[in-house]
Amino acid sequence: MRMRKKKHRDERLENCASYIIENIEEYKNDIKKVFENDKPLHIEIGCGKGKFIEELASLNPDINYIAVEKNLDVLVLAAEKASRANLSNLKFVAGDACIFDEFETKTKCERIYLNFSDPWKKSGQKKRRLTHERFLNVYKKLLVEKGEVHFKTDNTKLFEFSLNSFCDYGLKVKNITFDLHNSKFEGNIMTEYETRFAKEGKPIYRCEAVFN
Amino acid sequence: MRMRKKKHRDERLENCASYIIENIEEYKNDIKKVFENDKPLHIEIGCGKGKFIEELASLNPDINYIAVEKNLDVLVLAAEKASRANLSNLKFVAGDACIFDEFETKTKCERIYLNFSDPWKKSGQKKRRLTHERFLNVYKKLLVEKGEVHFKTDNTKLFEFSLNSFCDYGLKVKNITFDLHNSKFEGNIMTEYETRFAKEGKPIYRCEAVFN
Repeated sequence: MRMRKKKHRDERLENCASYIIENIEEYKNDIKKVFENDKPLHIEIGCGKGKFIEELASLNPDINYIAVEKNLDVLVLAAEKASRANLSNLKFVAGDACIFDEFETKTKCERIYLNFSDPWKKSGQKKRRLTHERFLNVYKKLLVEKGEVHFKTDNTKLFEFSLNSFCDYGLKVKNITFDLHNSKFEGNIMTEYETRFAKEGKPIYRCEAVFN
Repeated sequence: MRMRKKKHRDERLENCASYIIENIEEYKNDIKKVFENDKPLHIEIGCGKGKFIEELASLNPDINYIAVEKNLDVLVLAAEKASRANLSNLKFVAGDACIFDEFETKTKCERIYLNFSDPWKKSGQKKRRLTHERFLNVYKKLLVEKGEVHFKTDNTKLFEFSLNSFCDYGLKVKNITFDLHNSKFEGNIMTEYETRFAKEGKPIYRCEAVFN
């Protein structure tokens, strides 16, 4: 049964193969070459089922997007969304943030989105958190000067950790909110998780961190 | 009745007059001259009944402290605490943060404490919040290079406002915690308010903001 499900998933992935970058490491010196034009590039790490990035890409045809997701069962849903919407400015990578570890790209992206990243609650797991210094070093190499990380989470401990991590790294943090849905922030696009949390009345934390 | 109470208070203030700086404006060019020695100077703005600053001053005889409080009914209790403990490194000023508005002091303090400051909840009142840019400008003139504001509060909205205000001002924020009493922070001294909140299990926010 498990095998049949996986087989089916692979077929579906095959059907939207044009939306999936198989060989991301080939772009490690020139990430913008993923697309055939020179539009600004934004990246989402951990796109889940892709509601957020599909809506964002639809709203911003003049920005290119790369969305990274390690879980193929949800990546397929995200790629199918992009395919159905016939988007030419969104592509996907199967993997996690570590795929960029060896990147030394001369072309840069302007923005990285981290939405409801895994909190990795245990102290011994903190190096896995996507806002840990270990990953900020990676983002720094991907981003232009003044490039930004846009981060939201429902997890208080992860938000506290992330604010400290951003500040300790010397990033300029701005637009901090402890309750996004009751804040003045305009144009928020909700992820699947966020829609559920919003219904439950759970507050969402958000901030932006600017690299120097 | 009200008058009798006030009369009584004034007598009590009189009895610990040596702990109260009547003419703080005379030190506007040389704040450290409040004390007759050159020990480092720390300031608390809004000391309430003085539990925090009295304990702090007792623990740190090699640091001088000035505590500011506008409510004379509680200031008298704070001054009496210092007098009973026979502290020579703590003095009080009746007033609020505005007493330092015109200060252009050549001698500086190292640290300013803000504990459970009034949140001034209405948006129209935000200029009164002690972490507003308007006051950061005042603190900047009082503090040495790398001088710090140590801030704690139980109020989520005030903490959110303050983090943004510190970051927007270009201060380096560090040691951010959303739950001080369950954090790794050591040597916390509780204020009267804080003792009550702790009993109720209410989380306390805290951070430090470093001036450049």
